[in-house]
Amino acid sequence: MTREELVKAYFKKDAFVEGMGAEVVELNANRAIVRAKITPAHYNANGCAQGGMLYTLADFAFALHANYLHPATVTQMGSISYLKAAYTDEVTATATEKARSGHNTVSEVVLRDKAENVVCICTFNGFVKDVDPSEFEKKL
Amino acid sequence: MTREELVKAYFKKDAFVEGMGAEVVELNANRAIVRAKITPAHYNANGCAQGGMLYTLADFAFALHANYLHPATVTQMGSISYLKAAYTDEVTATATEKARSGHNTVSEVVLRDKAENVVCICTFNGFVKDVDPSEFEKKL
Amino acid sequence: MTREELVKAYFKKDAFVEGMGAEVVELNANRAIVRAKITPAHYNANGCAQGGMLYTLADFAFALHANYLHPATVTQMGSISYLKAAYTDEVTATATEKARSGHNTVSEVVLRDKAENVVCICTFNGFVKDVDPSEFEKKL
Amino acid sequence: MTREELVKAYFKKDAFVEGMGAEVVELNANRAIVRAKITPAHYNANGCAQGGMLYTLADFAFALHANYLHPATVTQMGSISYLKAAYTDEVTATATEKARSGHNTVSEVVLRDKAENVVCICTFNGFVKDVDPSEFEKKL
Repeated sequence: MTREELVKAYFKKDAFVEGMGAEVVELNANRAIVRAKITPAHYNANGCAQGGMLYTLADFAFALHANYLHPATVTQMGSISYLKAAYTDEVTATATEKARSGHNTVSEVVLRDKAENVVCICTFNGFVKDVDPSEFEKKL
Repeated sequence: MTREELVKAYFKKDAFVEGMGAEVVELNANRAIVRAKITPAHYNANGCAQGGMLYTLADFAFALHANYLHPATVTQMGSISYLKAAYTDEVTATATEKARSGHNTVSEVVLRDKAENVVCICTFNGFVKDVDPSEFEKKL
Repeated sequence: MTREELVKAYFKKDAFVEGMGAEVVELNANRAIVRAKITPAHYNANGCAQGGMLYTLADFAFALHANYLHPATVTQMGSISYLKAAYTDEVTATATEKARSGHNTVSEVVLRDKAENVVCICTFNGFVKDVDPSEFEKKL
Repeated sequence: MTREELVKAYFKKDAFVEGMGAEVVELNANRAIVRAKITPAHYNANGCAQGGMLYTLADFAFALHANYLHPATVTQMGSISYLKAAYTDEVTATATEKARSGHNTVSEVVLRDKAENVVCICTFNGFVKDVDPSEFEKKL
């Protein structure tokens, strides 16, 4: 398995994300892009994509990208700024690493609606455990 | 309807939270407490409560409390620190307001597993629109 | 030296905080309180306490408290929400630990003006190195 | 006065930043870059650039850039992740806007040491008041 396949297979086991529905559009050393269809099941009380749902999508993009770059990375901190209500039927999340130093990695994740408007900006801090990528394989 | 009933009825319309499963344990001027059963559907790839799921529960506790205190409040920023993996079958989130000034409110939300260990600490910043509570009623 | 004296002596060596001016009001297992006089040298372009100055005071309160509890703790992340402009001649910062688990500690710091209004709310994440308190002594 | 001159003249009145020492290297619609010499007066107890000092420099870069783009913007939230101790005699902070929507703007600020290592990554959330740039002129 390539590293991309390995990381995707491992995160396919994330039941909460699977239940929500999200597909991996791109995963490589530059970035991860994931996409979710927004249906009524994803709405908040105002009828647009719910805040926790958006965070979950962002966290998923970060997890894929960070674990692709540095197996294995666990999220230590996540933060999300809401800029625009997501009245849309599709949201993408793009994760890019900003810096890594020792056990710490920091990534930015940008969420956009179908019209490419930025709906949220997130920052994630991960703790890098530095294990061999084969560790993912054992867990599959 | 009391204010508590009104806010609970309004957020009952949050489809994503309903799908995840969360019950309101307490809602008053001091705090909001919500609780979620953790089942395999809530697991991440490691078999414990998924990070976005935990954030969603925290955001729900904040939304209830902030809107109880100040109708209507929308989340501007949320941040979450993960302290301990949530290998547990129940998580509670307790929201308490730390300060409010003008259109801004800041709350802390603490997530605990069934054994009362703190699993996450969150901070939420809300923008207070200052509408009449009856606005919620119109949306029911 | 008591632990309080040791931590205070160590942080007395922080030249930037010393230059800004801050005194330790209280330091124990429950909390740290520090206080700064606000003079024109601390003003931003609007004539009130500058945002970075307020953050620095908060970070100082956190550093004292975290290192009192867990020698040695280094700041990994700090965040600050500004609630009210600090037109005042004195600001206090009160740090209290919210949770600690393994190498991670999370504290809240509240900044208040002389009239006891909350001006800022901060969260700090520290990495605990778990060294013997005598390490501080060697550095004095 | 050009917009650049106006914003620089206004922030020249920030006494705390002036006392710390910071020069504006670049200020335009794309970004703001500021630079500070690191002297013993900027050290923490460990002999490197103090965490609050670094935050202050980042906040200054954000304030310049956001107010250049959107007069007048006030900081609502700032967060800083420390990646590497800044044992260096010069630090730069580069602010770039990530998104703006309505009254909200979000910028990233990256701090680098003299060897171009990333030392900190920051996110700032500003509230845009949308005033005429001439308002700055009145305050000079």
